[in-house]
Formats: sequence, structure tokens, C-alpha cells
Amino acid sequence: MQSAKGAPLEAYLAERKALIDDALERFLPGAEDGPEIIHQAVRYSLFAGGKRIRPILCLAAAEAVGGGGQDCLPCACALEMIHTYSLIHDDLPAMDNDDYRRGIATSHRVFGAGIAILAGDALLTEAFQLLSRPECTGGDMEKRLRVINLIARAAGMIGMVGGQVMDLQGEGKSVPLEILADIHRRKTGAMLTAAVVSGAILAGATAAQTAVLSRYGQDIGLAFQIADDILNVTGDSALMGKGTGSDISRGKTTFPALIGLEVSRNHLTELVAGAAAHLAGFNHRADPLRQIAGYIMDRNR
Amino acid sequence: MQSAKGAPLEAYLAERKALIDDALERFLPGAEDGPEIIHQAVRYSLFAGGKRIRPILCLAAAEAVGGGGQDCLPCACALEMIHTYSLIHDDLPAMDNDDYRRGIATSHRVFGAGIAILAGDALLTEAFQLLSRPECTGGDMEKRLRVINLIARAAGMIGMVGGQVMDLQGEGKSVPLEILADIHRRKTGAMLTAAVVSGAILAGATAAQTAVLSRYGQDIGLAFQIADDILNVTGDSALMGKGTGSDISRGKTTFPALIGLEVSRNHLTELVAGAAAHLAGFNHRADPLRQIAGYIMDRNR
Repeated sequence: MQSAKGAPLEAYLAERKALIDDALERFLPGAEDGPEIIHQAVRYSLFAGGKRIRPILCLAAAEAVGGGGQDCLPCACALEMIHTYSLIHDDLPAMDNDDYRRGIATSHRVFGAGIAILAGDALLTEAFQLLSRPECTGGDMEKRLRVINLIARAAGMIGMVGGQVMDLQGEGKSVPLEILADIHRRKTGAMLTAAVVSGAILAGATAAQTAVLSRYGQDIGLAFQIADDILNVTGDSALMGKGTGSDISRGKTTFPALIGLEVSRNHLTELVAGAAAHLAGFNHRADPLRQIAGYIMDRNR
Repeated sequence: MQSAKGAPLEAYLAERKALIDDALERFLPGAEDGPEIIHQAVRYSLFAGGKRIRPILCLAAAEAVGGGGQDCLPCACALEMIHTYSLIHDDLPAMDNDDYRRGIATSHRVFGAGIAILAGDALLTEAFQLLSRPECTGGDMEKRLRVINLIARAAGMIGMVGGQVMDLQGEGKSVPLEILADIHRRKTGAMLTAAVVSGAILAGATAAQTAVLSRYGQDIGLAFQIADDILNVTGDSALMGKGTGSDISRGKTTFPALIGLEVSRNHLTELVAGAAAHLAGFNHRADPLRQIAGYIMDRNR
């Protein structure tokens, strides 16, 4: 597939990742104030090889409605900081108790659980600090406040935190399909959708565009999780960065376990097609969003 | 002592606490969405008998510059939510490992460490959700964004989280006086100062008023911690809600341990007098702030 400017998707993703990594370096609090260990712990997890899917979705959604990517960089970075906090806390001994993530030791294995908890707390807090800075989206304060509220709702009790609670409670139990979908809608889908919608809002999307992009976000959010579940069954640990089957061994319900690998794959294909169909009213500027939907599915190949 | 309206300070504090408790009930996400256990855990800690010092300081600072308390209620509640999150996380086994707080079992003892971590995460996130809602300070978006940024900085890596990291690292070590003061400036002082300054900003304080109130906040912030340390040596566990001497038994440096009880008490008196002196340019509307400074010292009697 080709991106909007004719470059392959891989080149587009790599260029965006470099842009975001550079911005994260600039937006993080300077190491000259505060204890050194918290800066180390925050950077360790933030630069541990994430693909930057959420910030890239934010920038791509802004692009799709004709906005410039640069204005959305603080928001894009805040989304990645919140995502990283959620990974650090999810990996803790009191939660999923994972030793490895993206092929390297998890935060609590390197810094201890106390500092890991605080590194997560720091990333969540600094994300809102960044979102409320004047340079974030310049002078349009109404958009900034809408985006802060949108992201906080997606990350909070009815969104990501709620999903993680349900995930924790579902361990070792057989969870029906609608509950499994609800867990992932909250845990993964809410923040992926918030990434797309925040980029759209900051770039001045109409209400109709925002509504359509929200549905795109919801579809790829669920697709993302089904793809992850399939990878957990069929993939190798090098791709996942943690042991294949680790979710299953912890007694977590997965889509393949519930509806089988074949039906899971069909459902994934339908969701990705549906996500692309939502974008029918957009021009070539939405090509990166179209390609990212396909990319989520292709991780399985 | 008498408050601005002639009522004793106790009545003023009780009336304000009731106002804040009522607002917290209204502003919390409704239990109809999200898993029940997270709502329970959040409410358990939020309504565990806190004195609401931070939200009361926010309202009292607004009052001191002639503002109405009602406009500041969402911000006041957000401050208490962030304070409660910090207590839940500080008490965790991986941190201070406290079994009791305010005389009742800590969150992780009741709900387990996983849910306790998530309850803290939820409170921190929902605080920013509340701060970014349109009803928070009405239409003045510039003030709202300033307050969000101010609170996020105070709660983040250079503030409260940084202080807790230093506190954790200082355990079992002899910490010199300037480091001890720095820990408490970050861990307690930053958020107490943010409470005062955010109320002032929302009520339309001038830059000069805000600067003076910030110094008041810094002084009572340190006074608050020294008073706590003294109480930890001399108080009874009923007042503290946890065992007397628990900080000392954990190998934490305290002001009395470092400079003696007598010098600590003198320093406390000086700080409280200094805090009151900062308010010299304010009229009777600042009486609650003046009285709260005295109240912090009187907790020791």
C-alpha cells in the first residue's frame, strides 16, 4: 500500500515515529529538576520500542480532515505517555505480573514496583500537564479543553481503567463474548478512539467528520485487540515481546478461545473493512488511516 | 478564633467539608457505567474521613480575593481526588506498606493491591476530567487551562510524584535537613500551594495577590509536614489514624529526629506566623486562611 504522498506505509510510520520520538524528548520534564531515578524510569518505558500507534493515529486523523500534523504533536505525545503509564501499571506484580514487554524487562523488574508505580503516575500526570500547556494547539482554548476532557474520559473509570478492572476480575473465569468485547472496548478501544477523535478536533473537523472518525476508531480498536489475541495464539514471542500464550496461561479469555481462530480471523477482516468503509467520504488525505487499518490486520501474517 | 462571618473556625471547616463532600458525590462518575468494584474502591478512600484541607484552602483563597466559593467547587473536588489517589498509592505494599489510614484499613487491604492501584489511577484521571468539564469555572477557558497546568505540575515529576520518589529513596538513610525540606516541599507543599493558588486564579486574583498567596501556601505546606512529624513522635494513634512512630520505625527521617522537638516546634511557630504575615495586605475575607494556618499548628495541642 502507498501513503498519501506515495511512500510505502512502512516509510510513513517510520517518519511519524521519528517525529513523535523527537517531540517526546522535547516535551518531557527536564532532568535538571526532580530525582534522577524517576526521569530514568519514565524514559526507560517511554523509549522501549513502542510503535507509536496512538500518536500516529492522532496525526493521521488531523491530516484526514486537512489539518497540519505539527499542531497535534503535544496531544500525540500525551496519548503515548498515557499508553505507556497503562502498560507499566498493567505489568505490575499486583496486576498481570509480566516480566517482559517488547522483549525487554518490565519497569518493576528494573526499578522495583514502588518506582514503577510512580513512573506510571508521573506519565499520566505529565500527559495532562502537556495537554494544558499554551503551546499545545496554540490559542484555541476550547479545542484544548475538549481534547483534555475526551482523553480523560477515555482513560478513566468508564474507559481504560474500567477495562483493566474488568480484565483483572475476569482472570481465571470464562467470560462471555459480549463481556470480552466490552473489556476491550474500554481497555484498548477507548484510547485508540480518543487518539483519532482528538486529532480530528484539533484539526477543526466538523461534528459529522468527528462522528465518522469515532466509529473508525472503535472498529480498529476492537480489530487491534482481536489481532493481538490471534498473535497470542499463533505468533512467536519475538513478535509479541513476551511469551506466546501468556494471556492464556493466566486464564484470560481470548477471542480465539471463545469463537475459534477461523471466526476470529473473519471478524477481524470484517472490522478492518468496516473501518475503511467509514472513511468513504474522505479524500486521499485519509489514506494513512485506511492503510493503518490494514496494517493492524497484517500484523498477523 | 472566628471566621469571616463570625462563626468559630470549627463551624467554618465543618460547613465547608459538608459542601465539598456533597460536591464530590455529584462530580464522581455515575456507578451506572463501569465495573462496580472500582466505584466502591474510589468511594471507600474518598469518603474515609479526610478533613478536606486542600479543597477548603482552594475555596478560602478564592474568598480572600473576593471570589465566590461555588465556582471553585469542581477544582476543589479535583484537588481532593488527587490527594486521595496519592494516599492510596503511598500506602501500597510496594511503597509505605501501611495497613491503616485515618483509623480504617487501607485500600489494598480491603480490595487488593491491583484494584487499589487502579482506584488511584482512576481518581487521578477523573480529577483532570472534572477540571476540563465546561461547568468547571464556567466560560473562562484561560483560567481553567492555567489551573489544570498548575495542578498537573504540582502533582507531577517535579512536585508530588518527585517528592514521593525521594521519600522512598530516603528510607533507612539519614537525610540532611535541606533534603528533608525539599522532599516535603514537593510531596506536601506543592499541592497545598496549588490548592491556594488555583482558588486565587479562578476567583480572578491579580498577579501580585497570586504571588503572595503562593508564599502563604509554601509556608503552611512545610508547617503542615513539621506538625505531622511532631504528631508522629508525640501524638496518639487515634489522632493520626495509624501507629505513633510508624514513620520512624520505617527509617524515615523526621524534623524532630534531625533538629529536635523544641527546635521543630519553634520552626513551626515561625512558619505559621510567616504565613499569616503574607496575608497582611488582605482584608477580613482572608480570615479563614489566617485561621487555617493557626489550625495546622494547633493539631499538636
